[in-house]
Amino acid sequence: MEPRIIKALAEIVGRENVLTSPEELICYGYDATPGFSRLPEVVVRPGNKKEVSRVLALANREKIPVYTRGSGTNLSAGVVPMDGGIVLSTVRMNSILEIDPENFIAVVEPGVIVAELNAAVEKYGLIYPPDPGTVTTASMGGTVAENSGGLRGLKYGVTKHYVLGLEVVLADGQIAEFGGRTLRSPGYDMVMLFTGSEGTLGVITKIIVRLVPAPTHRKSMIAVFHDLNGAGKSIADIIGHKIIPATLEIMDNYTIRTVESFVKLGLPVEAEAIILAEVDGDEATVAQDAAKMEKILRENGGQVRVATSAQERDQIWAARRAALPSLAKLRPSTFCEDATVPRSKVPDMVRRITEIAQKYDVQIGTFGHAGDGNLHPTLVSDLRNNTEMERVYQAMDEIFLTALELDGTLSGEHGIGLGKLKYMPAQFGEVGLDVMRAIKKALDPNGILNPGKLVGQLQ
Amino acid sequence: MEPRIIKALAEIVGRENVLTSPEELICYGYDATPGFSRLPEVVVRPGNKKEVSRVLALANREKIPVYTRGSGTNLSAGVVPMDGGIVLSTVRMNSILEIDPENFIAVVEPGVIVAELNAAVEKYGLIYPPDPGTVTTASMGGTVAENSGGLRGLKYGVTKHYVLGLEVVLADGQIAEFGGRTLRSPGYDMVMLFTGSEGTLGVITKIIVRLVPAPTHRKSMIAVFHDLNGAGKSIADIIGHKIIPATLEIMDNYTIRTVESFVKLGLPVEAEAIILAEVDGDEATVAQDAAKMEKILRENGGQVRVATSAQERDQIWAARRAALPSLAKLRPSTFCEDATVPRSKVPDMVRRITEIAQKYDVQIGTFGHAGDGNLHPTLVSDLRNNTEMERVYQAMDEIFLTALELDGTLSGEHGIGLGKLKYMPAQFGEVGLDVMRAIKKALDPNGILNPGKLVGQLQ
Ligand SMILES: Cc1cc2nc3c(=O)[nH]c(=O)nc-3n(C[C@H](O)[C@H](O)[C@H](O)COP(=O)(O)OP(=O)(O)OC[C@H]3O[C@@H](n4cnc5c(N)ncnc54)[C@H](O)[C@@H]3O)c2cc1C
Ligand SMILES: Cc1cc2nc3c(=O)[nH]c(=O)nc-3n(C[C@H](O)[C@H](O)[C@H](O)COP(=O)(O)OP(=O)(O)OC[C@H]3O[C@@H](n4cnc5c(N)ncnc54)[C@H](O)[C@@H]3O)c2cc1C
Repeated sequence: MEPRIIKALAEIVGRENVLTSPEELICYGYDATPGFSRLPEVVVRPGNKKEVSRVLALANREKIPVYTRGSGTNLSAGVVPMDGGIVLSTVRMNSILEIDPENFIAVVEPGVIVAELNAAVEKYGLIYPPDPGTVTTASMGGTVAENSGGLRGLKYGVTKHYVLGLEVVLADGQIAEFGGRTLRSPGYDMVMLFTGSEGTLGVITKIIVRLVPAPTHRKSMIAVFHDLNGAGKSIADIIGHKIIPATLEIMDNYTIRTVESFVKLGLPVEAEAIILAEVDGDEATVAQDAAKMEKILRENGGQVRVATSAQERDQIWAARRAALPSLAKLRPSTFCEDATVPRSKVPDMVRRITEIAQKYDVQIGTFGHAGDGNLHPTLVSDLRNNTEMERVYQAMDEIFLTALELDGTLSGEHGIGLGKLKYMPAQFGEVGLDVMRAIKKALDPNGILNPGKLVGQLQ
Repeated sequence: MEPRIIKALAEIVGRENVLTSPEELICYGYDATPGFSRLPEVVVRPGNKKEVSRVLALANREKIPVYTRGSGTNLSAGVVPMDGGIVLSTVRMNSILEIDPENFIAVVEPGVIVAELNAAVEKYGLIYPPDPGTVTTASMGGTVAENSGGLRGLKYGVTKHYVLGLEVVLADGQIAEFGGRTLRSPGYDMVMLFTGSEGTLGVITKIIVRLVPAPTHRKSMIAVFHDLNGAGKSIADIIGHKIIPATLEIMDNYTIRTVESFVKLGLPVEAEAIILAEVDGDEATVAQDAAKMEKILRENGGQVRVATSAQERDQIWAARRAALPSLAKLRPSTFCEDATVPRSKVPDMVRRITEIAQKYDVQIGTFGHAGDGNLHPTLVSDLRNNTEMERVYQAMDEIFLTALELDGTLSGEHGIGLGKLKYMPAQFGEVGLDVMRAIKKALDPNGILNPGKLVGQLQ
């Protein structure tokens, strides 16, 4: 990068907020996605929207790529600076600007960590429901830009269901505000357009979110199935009885075995599937729903254990939380995907993934949010082994195309980034993708924002 | 319109689906908004997406404006064909294509009436929650394009919270599908962009919506307040106690008096405000929440009546349902607006509206969805009286700017159309509006779709 640009950036954000040494840059050259990395030329850490604005205006004038980075935990290579350029870190914009308990609203800067927001609203009896596995590390800006989901998606929805307003700095440095403090705002829904836009349309500098009352009670249970069909039928029956658990998770045999081998929780390693569920709400509803759910799980062949103490509850969820870390310990490289299907297709999908694993001789553990069909087939492998990787990538292709075949989608929560770009035409067709590209072009004509991601390189 | 165009249209949709006689055209020259009307040159009623596609391709080639019309019940002049051209009616595309009770999903054509969908899903114990006052007349396409709200917005949200997928015909006739059957879809959120786009970006030809379990129990009550502050405090306290009623409505003194003068329900005409509320859910929760709510209303000075039978419930809601029709009977012209503020500002807003009515000597009844701050100041007047209308429009301006001043928005559910276009810069600034215009331009470069609406005329 030309020294005059570095100098100009330093004038905007202060010398101490411009990083250029190789040791520093190296921390910004990757994210949580295996197989992608590239050093940026410079990292800037603006402290407010005005600085962001000036950085973008400069980058736009000079046609330098800008990669906005929250905590870098995404799983789709969303922040890897493939064309060098500038990484813009939101780490310094980390204030909770306002909590409005009367209107159930919070206003935050993008660098606020999700768990920090939840900690701050707890005393008002409120929660911010989106809860990706990374709540304690992911930034609000990153989760909004990814439209992240989490364990409670079935009942509470995903990030987009909580974002009411956004302040964004556009590619040319202009600042706009969309949405606000009401449930609905007129005009094109720019708030939703920027939510999930993966840093390709602008830099989010302020976020207004909706909060909801914290449930007063909850009850967790775990059910072991020797037959996947019983697990599938349970999911259908629970929902069919109009019980909407906050969380309804599934783990397949491969995942169960792996978890058990690392964390001895007494899981039966021969089980075809485990379901973990939690209902929440007021006391009466929770008692009622939990009893009904337990009955359904048993009727479908599940061996059920209901948590009767906070400790037992933690133990149940420890099994679920151990899934990804345990799988990740098996082999050097872990690809945690999020191929998603309608709820009723979950058993089909789990079965198809197992077949794909056999067909390509690849190790895949599948777990995830059964209630909303958002599964995490996790491929464990070794990036250094080229012939294995060829099979891994083939298996991945087939998994995503299978999800689409089953009326599903490419991404239940992790985004497209670079990782899943090649599948986009299969979901949206060239016409659909062209519409998205037209929007990218309209908002970022020079293509400086996270270029090449989500909608690919534009001409 | 040139005969060759009429001929070409007849070839696409069939002669019987092309209307050109003045008696026919006159029915398509207005909607529910007073003060706007214009005859179209031709009305076409395509039967499927292919016909829609061919109509748009033709119109785009010939640069003829196209106004997509559902049931024409909108309140922002959204379907008035101000530049003549083609009105495209979706009335023939009125099939419920699929109900998938396992995944809580329905797929409909745009011409399906909202209440028809609800009737069809009832037997599965499911509901489609968005419930504008026009449920029995409004089309699914129209409510999606307006992002309509309704009485249950506080607990259930508005239309956008239920739209999962859309098939749209673009300005040039190309057909695209976005979203699908899962909670979240990757890429730019085109589903949300088209939801609320008021017919300016494309014609919606298929809609995939999410359904939810029907509540098994509900309890309604009405509370009369001699002091507006008591009503305001009640709203705050109810929500503060984390009770989220399905419906939480307010009516001001002017509305109460008007309703009572037309429908004798025994409402106390000197009351400053009435609150009408309904909680729904399972039996235990409803009993609990209703009891708490009743207590709060009483503590704040409300005289409360709780419905103990279906008949009493109907009576309570008859009062609310009578609000708009009663006000509309007062004078020849009724402007029902939807200036919306954060919930905590409802009493301020009601008070300010009363002051504005006095200041401009205009008759305004205010009622609406207090729980989500979505108020309906309803200005009754006579369009033929120019000097009065000048005052009416001034009052309207001040109402909308007051909503913005109180951190609110121009439209809680009725959309912008032509009616509120002039206020858009006040909410979004020129930068925000330019972004929306850039999107309009990207998707409809010839500006044929509902030209002049929502984002105004483009150069
Ligand atoms: C172990 C593990 C578990 C996970 N579990 C889940 C899960 O359960 N659910 C889930 O949804 N995800 C999950 N993820 C993925 C990841 O946590 C989320 O995508 C996360 O929300 C990203 O936040 P971040 O701050 O790290 O964003 P980053 O990775 O830094 O960025 C993500 C994207 O957002 C953009 N971006 C960041 N900040 C801004 C901004 N201010 N303005 C505009 N664009 C911006 C970036 O350019 C990039 O495209 C998991 C990841 C890991 C590693
Ligand atoms: C008495 C009364 C009460 C009302 N109460 C409420 C209420 O409580 N809540 C509320 O939100 N609204 C309310 N409204 C407004 C109105 O009912 C809604 O806006 C309604 O949903 C519009 O539906 P429609 O089919 O009549 O659409 P139309 O009026 O025909 O069209 C509305 C807009 O949608 C566009 N459009 C229609 N179909 C399509 C399509 N297939 N593709 C693309 N664009 C399309 C049109 O171009 C237009 O811009 C009320 C109206 C009246 C008259």
